[in-house]
Amino acid sequence: MKKTLVFLILISTTFNLHAEDGHLLWLRAKSTGKVTIVCFSKSSTIAIAKQELEQSWQGKNGAKLLLTIKKSKAIKGDGFKISENEIQANTELGILYGAYELLRRQQTGEAIQNEICNPSYERRILNHWDNLDGSVERGYAGKSIFWHDMEKGYAVTDNDRILWKEYARANASIGINGAVLNNVNSSKLMLTTECLQKVKAISEVMRPYGIKTYLSVKFSSPTLIGGLKTSDPLNSEVIKWWKDKAKEIHKIIPDFGGFLIKANSEGEPGPQDFGRTHADGANMLADVVKPYGGIIMWRAFVYEINSKDRAAQAYNEFMPLDGQFRDNVIIQVKNGPVDFQPREPFNPLFGAMKKTSVMPELQITQEYLGHSEQLVYLAKMWEEFLKSDTHQEGVGSTVARTTDASIFPQKHTAIAGVANIGLDTNWCGHHFAQSNWYAFGRMAWNNQITSEKIADEWLKLTFYPIEEKDSKVSDWKKNFLEPVKQLMLESHEAAVNYSMPLGLHHIFAGLNNTHYGPGPWFGPKGIRSDWTAAYYHKADASGIGFDRTEKGSGAVNQYHEPLKSQFENIETCPEIYLLWFHHLPWDYKMKNERILWDELCYTYDKGVKEVREFQKIWDKAQPYIDEQRFFEVQSKLRRQSRDAQIWKDGCLLYFQQFSKRPIPFDIERPVYNLDYLSKTDLTDYLK
Amino acid sequence: MKKTLVFLILISTTFNLHAEDGHLLWLRAKSTGKVTIVCFSKSSTIAIAKQELEQSWQGKNGAKLLLTIKKSKAIKGDGFKISENEIQANTELGILYGAYELLRRQQTGEAIQNEICNPSYERRILNHWDNLDGSVERGYAGKSIFWHDMEKGYAVTDNDRILWKEYARANASIGINGAVLNNVNSSKLMLTTECLQKVKAISEVMRPYGIKTYLSVKFSSPTLIGGLKTSDPLNSEVIKWWKDKAKEIHKIIPDFGGFLIKANSEGEPGPQDFGRTHADGANMLADVVKPYGGIIMWRAFVYEINSKDRAAQAYNEFMPLDGQFRDNVIIQVKNGPVDFQPREPFNPLFGAMKKTSVMPELQITQEYLGHSEQLVYLAKMWEEFLKSDTHQEGVGSTVARTTDASIFPQKHTAIAGVANIGLDTNWCGHHFAQSNWYAFGRMAWNNQITSEKIADEWLKLTFYPIEEKDSKVSDWKKNFLEPVKQLMLESHEAAVNYSMPLGLHHIFAGLNNTHYGPGPWFGPKGIRSDWTAAYYHKADASGIGFDRTEKGSGAVNQYHEPLKSQFENIETCPEIYLLWFHHLPWDYKMKNERILWDELCYTYDKGVKEVREFQKIWDKAQPYIDEQRFFEVQSKLRRQSRDAQIWKDGCLLYFQQFSKRPIPFDIERPVYNLDYLSKTDLTDYLK
Repeated sequence: MKKTLVFLILISTTFNLHAEDGHLLWLRAKSTGKVTIVCFSKSSTIAIAKQELEQSWQGKNGAKLLLTIKKSKAIKGDGFKISENEIQANTELGILYGAYELLRRQQTGEAIQNEICNPSYERRILNHWDNLDGSVERGYAGKSIFWHDMEKGYAVTDNDRILWKEYARANASIGINGAVLNNVNSSKLMLTTECLQKVKAISEVMRPYGIKTYLSVKFSSPTLIGGLKTSDPLNSEVIKWWKDKAKEIHKIIPDFGGFLIKANSEGEPGPQDFGRTHADGANMLADVVKPYGGIIMWRAFVYEINSKDRAAQAYNEFMPLDGQFRDNVIIQVKNGPVDFQPREPFNPLFGAMKKTSVMPELQITQEYLGHSEQLVYLAKMWEEFLKSDTHQEGVGSTVARTTDASIFPQKHTAIAGVANIGLDTNWCGHHFAQSNWYAFGRMAWNNQITSEKIADEWLKLTFYPIEEKDSKVSDWKKNFLEPVKQLMLESHEAAVNYSMPLGLHHIFAGLNNTHYGPGPWFGPKGIRSDWTAAYYHKADASGIGFDRTEKGSGAVNQYHEPLKSQFENIETCPEIYLLWFHHLPWDYKMKNERILWDELCYTYDKGVKEVREFQKIWDKAQPYIDEQRFFEVQSKLRRQSRDAQIWKDGCLLYFQQFSKRPIPFDIERPVYNLDYLSKTDLTDYLK
Repeated sequence: MKKTLVFLILISTTFNLHAEDGHLLWLRAKSTGKVTIVCFSKSSTIAIAKQELEQSWQGKNGAKLLLTIKKSKAIKGDGFKISENEIQANTELGILYGAYELLRRQQTGEAIQNEICNPSYERRILNHWDNLDGSVERGYAGKSIFWHDMEKGYAVTDNDRILWKEYARANASIGINGAVLNNVNSSKLMLTTECLQKVKAISEVMRPYGIKTYLSVKFSSPTLIGGLKTSDPLNSEVIKWWKDKAKEIHKIIPDFGGFLIKANSEGEPGPQDFGRTHADGANMLADVVKPYGGIIMWRAFVYEINSKDRAAQAYNEFMPLDGQFRDNVIIQVKNGPVDFQPREPFNPLFGAMKKTSVMPELQITQEYLGHSEQLVYLAKMWEEFLKSDTHQEGVGSTVARTTDASIFPQKHTAIAGVANIGLDTNWCGHHFAQSNWYAFGRMAWNNQITSEKIADEWLKLTFYPIEEKDSKVSDWKKNFLEPVKQLMLESHEAAVNYSMPLGLHHIFAGLNNTHYGPGPWFGPKGIRSDWTAAYYHKADASGIGFDRTEKGSGAVNQYHEPLKSQFENIETCPEIYLLWFHHLPWDYKMKNERILWDELCYTYDKGVKEVREFQKIWDKAQPYIDEQRFFEVQSKLRRQSRDAQIWKDGCLLYFQQFSKRPIPFDIERPVYNLDYLSKTDLTDYLK
């Protein structure tokens, strides 16, 4: 009843279809009544909480709200308890999170009862792959919000501070409490004093919002900027250099969070350069930041040149080190064993490393999922991942539970998301890409939340008309919310269907390293084999797919039973992972009786049709959306529709060279020629 | 019985799916038996006839065939009588035509009885819009077969002669007996002695095949190359200059056919520059060529800058001159009143000029119909045109009959087609564009023939497997001939549907003057209004279409009753011409109860779907087609499918700005953005 009431109040009092540019993200609500806030603590964080509540209050007009900081065992970390009249927390930040939760529930019509909300992970961190020259690796929303052209140096303007504040606020509103400010492929300049002064300025703006600052650093910094002859982690001068550097940093940024390291991966320096292990390297740095409460996030994204099976490598390299890491080291593992593909099974390191903290790394920016051109709601994929059962400690050992300390004793827990944020007015390039930022925060806070609930929240917050306008309002849920939510929830599967279905992976465009569009043909002369597409799809006259069974690479052995047998056995292997684990003949019979080749054709085609359906859904919803965002999303959906077709045509025509079979005749024919597609960089094609 | 037999012989003895490049056109047959030719005449033309019969004979092995030149009243001009054992004709050329007809029937399985075949028109002429620098205006099949880069001058090589011979043979095989060797926008150099020497070389190769040479000339030649101060047609020096030139030409080219003139049109000089009429100009030249049996083809393609209704202009300008032209002048009139649009009603001059010879000008090259990128079988459109009833002399006064001397006394009859031929290996750029060349010849010979019969003939001649291969042969008719013929017959209507349906016209791309793809938005600042698209579609908030009723431009008055009333009355106006004659509100109710806007949407969409269906038909027929031609056509059909979508998207999105109505939701949404399409030259897009 209350739910309905709040929603009705919203409906009857707010409706506005004036243009919105998306800059306000999900924080568009204006207060519809007065509230008196009572709080006996004072701080910049509490002040923010009060201001937010006052300016966006949509509860009872004239209500009183108590903010109470009081230790409670039931409340963990920066968690909180909310009711209609009170927010209680252990920390000021808990109060702020409670305030945002209360406002969110008011706006979305969710019940507000006596309820405790605790975070799933201690550290909920955005990784910005921002370079110091302002560019953003795999960024599709404009230049860096932190770094400018080198010519401008590290100067900080008022506009910078305004933007960082908006950024910090948006993060805090969804529970994000940390940001790695620079690319994992880091610059040696990051640790120079000049550069750290800029980090200081950023951290000062973010601190009241509870956002801790982290940095990616080059493992060889002692040599590169310290003038040392080595960066060997066991060398005492090296250790001293790092200790001094940590001291310097913490003097400037007292709440500095720690380092993120990409070491011995894709050419980055690391301890192996000096005959040391990942553990040697990580532990040395861990000791260095320990006095300041810092952590080391050490990435497990490693793979050898031309290895037999890249998917098996992280496990092979890190499992032997389990138990050797300090308790303030967290191994940061990408969700899948290869590299943020549209669909991968979970990385077998999850649950397997029982004596080491492991944190998931998700990619919010859509490197392999259509950049900011395509509408792909990633929460659905992350939900699939977090709920994957590793079976490592019996049924129910989900990835979520193996990383949030529910099962293993972990001193620190964390989750990272590679940000999709840039200087674009709407922050993310695509209005719907905002939903992925939002969803990452919500899932980092609560790894059991459903992607559907997040979509529902986000749509209400982001698109609900702000001011009343006309009678159409009563149709909004039926004609906008429900169909568009459905679109979001289907969007990831559609992207898988039109790009890499049935377990296919790493067949994206390699030309110009764009990773945009299809590239099953990619493999220029002289390139390392594990960067070619054929390495992964292995299409030939006999069939298609990567054999990772015992007879193949054996990577299936890295999974705990019963998964190992399930994946190994063609009868029980889920068809969504079919070609991930098996190389199968073109006429292999699928469960629906179709042969594999036909199923591939129908699946690509299905993906195309799904995007066409998305276009219809969006166009039908036009009366309920403000003009600017309607047309911007409409335009991107058009491109996505073309892109889906390009994927279908490119992949089917390429694989047809091996299958030597016709595309079933009830399927629409390709409209692009393979020759053209394989020679063209489609990133900017027909934008 | 005999039909079947011949066909079966073909089937059982010839089948070959080896690559063919299309260079042989419809002349691929090899003899399957011996024939003894008996002929008492000797000449190069007769020698050709004998050679053709011997090398392609598919009749009874060991047969005897008599070639008889004997005057017969029943046989007209270069007509002939054929039976299994004899070809009889008035002329050597008639024998050659009879030979080709006999061979065609043998190959296609058509009955060969005692039958007289007479040509509908005396002169069956290709107009080559070839420039002396080797470029071809509106040519989409490579450079000119007659003219080379200016740097090469007018040199003639053996390869040139081989090509011209192949060209002449192809023309003769379908009854074409004339060629205008250069562009109607002619060069002043055409009449220089050097240039005429090259024409001599060409005419010598073509003469045995009965192809007469004609030239386009600049009306101002006396001034431009003759050094005279005027080109006034009534000036005696000018007349003398032309007489001398004609004498010179006929000395070099004894069977020279005459001149084609584009005068006072699109900036070309003409008699009006000197205050004279078209009749003054044409008659002067007619008198000049008369002694040599020459004719003057005077184009009626005229329109004033910014006129109120360009469609009305040719009629307005030429009708007052009816009766004033010499009997060796023929007014060459484009089929429609505007300019070779995908669909136009016939030009009202047909049938209206009762005392003047009028000849149709058709466009074989696909200037407005997808260049050589799209498969559009034009014979269907030409058939519609030729069978249009002008009602000028009662029911049955079809365009065909008003131009072939069936109704009016005409000393000369003729028909012209603007060629689609160039140096491309397959002559026409698109394998199916050959069918339009073929069809033009067949219709010029017989203006009552159906487009279906021509398609049937052409497909059999062009695609029938040459050598036996396997059992698939027996399915050829069912699986190739019938579906592909259907494709051809539907292709023109499909092109109309996806480009300019319901009477829309002249809304093609103007950017770079390509005339390729949609351009309803075309209208750069300062351009003359009748070159903009809006001049023709007149879309605005109130509706769309060109009002040519009495309340509008009144152009409808140029048609004879009952057409005039039929077109004037919205209830009786054929919907295919609806927006040609009427400006109608967006919610105008169509006969199927849809509103006009919706019908426009459904029609564009239908066009897209039709092309997609063509792709399926072609792909299904793959086993019955040689590889090279299969893939080349498949590739072009893919582009056509994209092009159809571009047309649909561009036009619907453009017009939607005025209609302010949604595209019905059971229609697939646009995938291109208007902004992009309106700024992009799509000619070479994704070739």
